[in-house]
Amino acid sequence: MASVVTLTTDFGTADGYVGAMKGVIAEIAPQARVIDLTHDIPHGDVRGAAFALYRAVPYYPPDSVHCVVIDPGVGTARRALAVRTEGRQYLVGPDGGAFTLFCPPFSDAVPEAVELSEPRWWRAGHDLSATFHGRDIFAPVAAHLARQIETGDADLEVFGPRARRLRRFEVPAPVEERDAYRGEVVHVDHFGNAITNLPERWVAAHPEAPVIAEAGGKAMPVVRTYGDVRSGDLCALVGSAGWLEVACRDGSAADRLGLAPGIPVVLRRTAPRARPLS
Amino acid sequence: MASVVTLTTDFGTADGYVGAMKGVIAEIAPQARVIDLTHDIPHGDVRGAAFALYRAVPYYPPDSVHCVVIDPGVGTARRALAVRTEGRQYLVGPDGGAFTLFCPPFSDAVPEAVELSEPRWWRAGHDLSATFHGRDIFAPVAAHLARQIETGDADLEVFGPRARRLRRFEVPAPVEERDAYRGEVVHVDHFGNAITNLPERWVAAHPEAPVIAEAGGKAMPVVRTYGDVRSGDLCALVGSAGWLEVACRDGSAADRLGLAPGIPVVLRRTAPRARPLS
Amino acid sequence: MASVVTLTTDFGTADGYVGAMKGVIAEIAPQARVIDLTHDIPHGDVRGAAFALYRAVPYYPPDSVHCVVIDPGVGTARRALAVRTEGRQYLVGPDGGAFTLFCPPFSDAVPEAVELSEPRWWRAGHDLSATFHGRDIFAPVAAHLARQIETGDADLEVFGPRARRLRRFEVPAPVEERDAYRGEVVHVDHFGNAITNLPERWVAAHPEAPVIAEAGGKAMPVVRTYGDVRSGDLCALVGSAGWLEVACRDGSAADRLGLAPGIPVVLRRTAPRARPLS
Repeated sequence: MASVVTLTTDFGTADGYVGAMKGVIAEIAPQARVIDLTHDIPHGDVRGAAFALYRAVPYYPPDSVHCVVIDPGVGTARRALAVRTEGRQYLVGPDGGAFTLFCPPFSDAVPEAVELSEPRWWRAGHDLSATFHGRDIFAPVAAHLARQIETGDADLEVFGPRARRLRRFEVPAPVEERDAYRGEVVHVDHFGNAITNLPERWVAAHPEAPVIAEAGGKAMPVVRTYGDVRSGDLCALVGSAGWLEVACRDGSAADRLGLAPGIPVVLRRTAPRARPLS
Repeated sequence: MASVVTLTTDFGTADGYVGAMKGVIAEIAPQARVIDLTHDIPHGDVRGAAFALYRAVPYYPPDSVHCVVIDPGVGTARRALAVRTEGRQYLVGPDGGAFTLFCPPFSDAVPEAVELSEPRWWRAGHDLSATFHGRDIFAPVAAHLARQIETGDADLEVFGPRARRLRRFEVPAPVEERDAYRGEVVHVDHFGNAITNLPERWVAAHPEAPVIAEAGGKAMPVVRTYGDVRSGDLCALVGSAGWLEVACRDGSAADRLGLAPGIPVVLRRTAPRARPLS
Repeated sequence: MASVVTLTTDFGTADGYVGAMKGVIAEIAPQARVIDLTHDIPHGDVRGAAFALYRAVPYYPPDSVHCVVIDPGVGTARRALAVRTEGRQYLVGPDGGAFTLFCPPFSDAVPEAVELSEPRWWRAGHDLSATFHGRDIFAPVAAHLARQIETGDADLEVFGPRARRLRRFEVPAPVEERDAYRGEVVHVDHFGNAITNLPERWVAAHPEAPVIAEAGGKAMPVVRTYGDVRSGDLCALVGSAGWLEVACRDGSAADRLGLAPGIPVVLRRTAPRARPLS
């Protein structure tokens, strides 16, 4: 079975850097199915990459390889990694934080990881460039890993020694109070929806009372889907990845409310609903 | 023969939503060739998607599957559809109007369509999300359809009951007068060319007299190709899809003339050319 | 072995023009692996396309086909070409200058080229459009070439007669002085790095003395990698394609210094380093 290699970068495509990575992969692993996950991560936005991966990676067949190059630290001492997640997805890229959401508390297990220190898997016959490890280390390693998966003998440890403590960005835990749950925006997506750190379960745990959300100085209903409010109205709803999102139907909640990572979002229980007489 | 699945969305790629759809397809139909048609449709722009599909879909091999998710109505009662066009292209997506240009009067036949109401073809083993049917319904159905096409037993009716009257946006018919043909801009493309509802045949039908076009308060020649005018000059010409377009060589006619859908464009016959003496 | 066809255009994807080209290729060469190199070349920017190709094409397996359509002259007398580079990469596209960096002095040999004048390889059964040769000539020729490569009988000359003197843009030669090397910016990439015409070898040839670079009225150190300066600092370094680049760590040197093609960049040798006592 042909293996899958996805690519996630902040390179854009116009300069040809991504094109070079695809050429390297086509040379090493001509059978692999190469899939563009995205090249439009904002420059250096490790957090944006982490959320893109979190939304996409779990839907791939096990043993897919995801090459992720957001690398402002290229040429410094930052580590180069290959990681196997709890769900048997492989992640290859610099240790800059993009794999945060595949580590506890977002996964149950600590993922296995190795440091890419074995030059025999890098681009062959050339000096290593000091500025483009996407082409010279990460694409070749992803391609070799894909080949090994095709032949059934993938072994992370051939690429280098075990690596501990992946670099992670902080996602603050929400704070539960008596009738409220205080969280914050952790990411704003391309539609202007603001993803928060408030998990689905708190909303689901309080079906007996209407819950409202507050963000950017406005209160809004917590609904099931965009269609539950009118065009242009604000709402909060559990997004496709399981976290509460602040949204505006047919518009951008982030623009409307000035939302950005770190801005508080509060879920508040209102007076209990009167039970209908039966 | 491996089947083809193309993807058209307004999701952009940066958030990972498209990446999730590709993962779902790779899981269900690992042999399918997945082709990005575009993810840069402006948010909610059903008309833009319709023109992109109109320009691209007819050039695919018959039995290609095109998954088209422009879905501002996700979670409302809008229908989910699979459609087979006159040219045996399959279209899968919400019933929001994106398939307008594959219906009469733009095609000779009414396309076959079914409503996607059979959950067994949706993403398996999960509750349906209320906000992301691209991942949970349309990508899985497109992938299952591609598999059925590979094995030679594609049957739209397994996906749900026959659907009638696809939702369509209005493209006004041009009005013919004695020496003029009055139409309007229906779409502006990425180069700033303004596509009109004036068909090729009216221009072709009047070879005996020079025809000029008027748009945005300016008159311009009707030419065969951009090279017939000087750099920076305005012209009108029959575009690659068979409709008159207002263009500016090496520039944007839309910016220059303030063109947008609905702005009038008139083709006008001028004084007949003197016949050359023979 | 399935062949590789890459696509490079300035079409963007939103209008469906690229989608049409991919459909044409899927019809003619269903086995080919179609790879998006980029569709985000700025409109008509032949030089940008040339640099993207220069960075990417050498990393593909020999006998890959690269379809490159930056074509402001479509419908004029500009030639349509198929080219085989010194490194046995095939380039197919209009003769507008995008292949400059595969010609001397950037390659040792003059590439072989033919003019695409044989309509039997164009899109079958249709009149040639006057505005979209990407779909009607270049994609079909690239696909036919890919098929011929798969079956081992690729022969450029079946597509038309030998073409001489490819159109090229001028890259001025840098000027060497006693203690300085005067060049200029030739291209600015998506990160805001300014690529110059100053080759790696001049920097490498003067290891005994510190070299500084001057651009946009500022002097900056010549370093090995971004990590050698602090975040926000300017530097010059040899980029991944072998030319000196002016960069700003975690920022845009082009924005900071007002750099654009043609702006002078000078490498200057400073006082020799004192030898350490041994």
